[in-house]
Amino acid sequence: MKIIIVGASGTMGKHLVKALEKEHEVITVASKGCDIDADITSPESIENLFRKAGSFDALISTAGPTFVGPWGKLNDAAFRKGVEGKMMGQINLVLIGQHYINPKGSFTLITGALTHEPQVNFANASAVNGAVEGFVRAAAIELDNGIRINAVSPTVIEDSPQYFPYFPGEIPTTMRQLEFMFRKSVFGKGTGHIIRA
Amino acid sequence: MKIIIVGASGTMGKHLVKALEKEHEVITVASKGCDIDADITSPESIENLFRKAGSFDALISTAGPTFVGPWGKLNDAAFRKGVEGKMMGQINLVLIGQHYINPKGSFTLITGALTHEPQVNFANASAVNGAVEGFVRAAAIELDNGIRINAVSPTVIEDSPQYFPYFPGEIPTTMRQLEFMFRKSVFGKGTGHIIRA
Ligand SMILES: NC(=O)c1ccc[n+]([C@@H]2O[C@H](COP(=O)([O-])OP(=O)(O)OC[C@H]3O[C@@H](n4cnc5c(N)ncnc54)[C@H](OP(=O)(O)O)[C@@H]3O)[C@@H](O)[C@H]2O)c1
Ligand SMILES: NC(=O)c1ccc[n+]([C@@H]2O[C@H](COP(=O)([O-])OP(=O)(O)OC[C@H]3O[C@@H](n4cnc5c(N)ncnc54)[C@H](OP(=O)(O)O)[C@@H]3O)[C@@H](O)[C@H]2O)c1
Repeated sequence: MKIIIVGASGTMGKHLVKALEKEHEVITVASKGCDIDADITSPESIENLFRKAGSFDALISTAGPTFVGPWGKLNDAAFRKGVEGKMMGQINLVLIGQHYINPKGSFTLITGALTHEPQVNFANASAVNGAVEGFVRAAAIELDNGIRINAVSPTVIEDSPQYFPYFPGEIPTTMRQLEFMFRKSVFGKGTGHIIRA
Repeated sequence: MKIIIVGASGTMGKHLVKALEKEHEVITVASKGCDIDADITSPESIENLFRKAGSFDALISTAGPTFVGPWGKLNDAAFRKGVEGKMMGQINLVLIGQHYINPKGSFTLITGALTHEPQVNFANASAVNGAVEGFVRAAAIELDNGIRINAVSPTVIEDSPQYFPYFPGEIPTTMRQLEFMFRKSVFGKGTGHIIRA
């Protein structure tokens, strides 16, 4: 299978590349330093990414910048970080990528437990996660040619201990669980699902 | 209670104004033709709205423009209708309005069943509803001074029969049910809730 991983240089991305490249052709994508460099906040850059990558069977996205910080600093401008990044960035990967993906291909986007379990400092992520999840359910009934779409929604992940203090009592998702959540989306048959740990 | 209703000239808004103005001071807001005219897609216009309205006890929003149309026309530009309107418009009503609302006041935003039950042509609404619902849950743990926030999420409403064909088999929310959903948010004590029919 030819799999594009957007966010390949990040904590999740690195783990997934290592796990999947043994058996699949993996094309890595991030802002810099990958097989293809692209900025998901720009539709033009996304279009270029797909032109370079050519047709593919699965796209995994773990690229989802959001504003993290005190509520008092969360104004319209700060909110745009998540709107342009994790929300429209990932939505545009699908709206544009659907014209390049092979029949029966799949899109797997990243959200997170914050959609339903808010934490102080993370309102921007809660909102844009909710947007991506709503979009995933809707896109699943619209996409043609057997193309599937799901979201993976982990709790704080084991390889991000720097975030543990912000998620008191949250049981971390292990990297193996995370990997299996993505495998379920890419290699299973489900569509429109929000895959939780 | 002094209650601001944004979207007061619309199908839902007109019903709520009529129901609430008997016992409360209602300030009506829409793009045009109301006590205060404001454009929720502009933070400056929202700031002006609150300056004119002065302090208040509850804000109800039923203003939520989205792109409705075929999937093939849903690109980044079309998506912005819901992002700027129903999503950031309503989120900015809260981010800005929190500085004008009285202690123990409440915000009640509008979403809809599309968040979890997608329909063809409405992916933009599914996404931005999801964003507003994620935001509501997060804002509920951040807002100070006992200020509450909820969303009302009806199915297609009885007074919008023109939408029935797009929601096959969906049991409409009656106007009385809709009114009670808003009453639950404004006059109850709950916060961070998504109120369904
Ligand atoms: N870490 C956790 O515990 C956790 C838990 C639940 C959910 N999540 C969510 O999962 C996602 C990934 O988390 P992570 O910890 O793996 O993040 P990360 O280590 O910061 O990695 C993010 C990846 O996305 C890429 N990226 C960021 N902005 C981009 C842009 N505009 N265009 C293209 N690529 C871009 C980064 O590449 P560049 O550096 O080159 O930009 C990097 O490869 C985030 O959305 C996060 O909210 C994380
Ligand atoms: N109708 C249904 O069956 C149904 C069911 C579930 C959810 N919903 C959601 O509920 C919301 C309201 O529905 P509705 O049927 O009452 O809609 P509507 O009849 O179209 O009314 C919308 C109201 O919002 C105002 N508005 C729109 N854009 C605005 C802006 N940029 N700034 C300020 N005011 C603005 C309109 O005033 P102007 O005309 O002056 O702009 C009008 O007062 C929508 O978000 C819809 O998605 C509707």
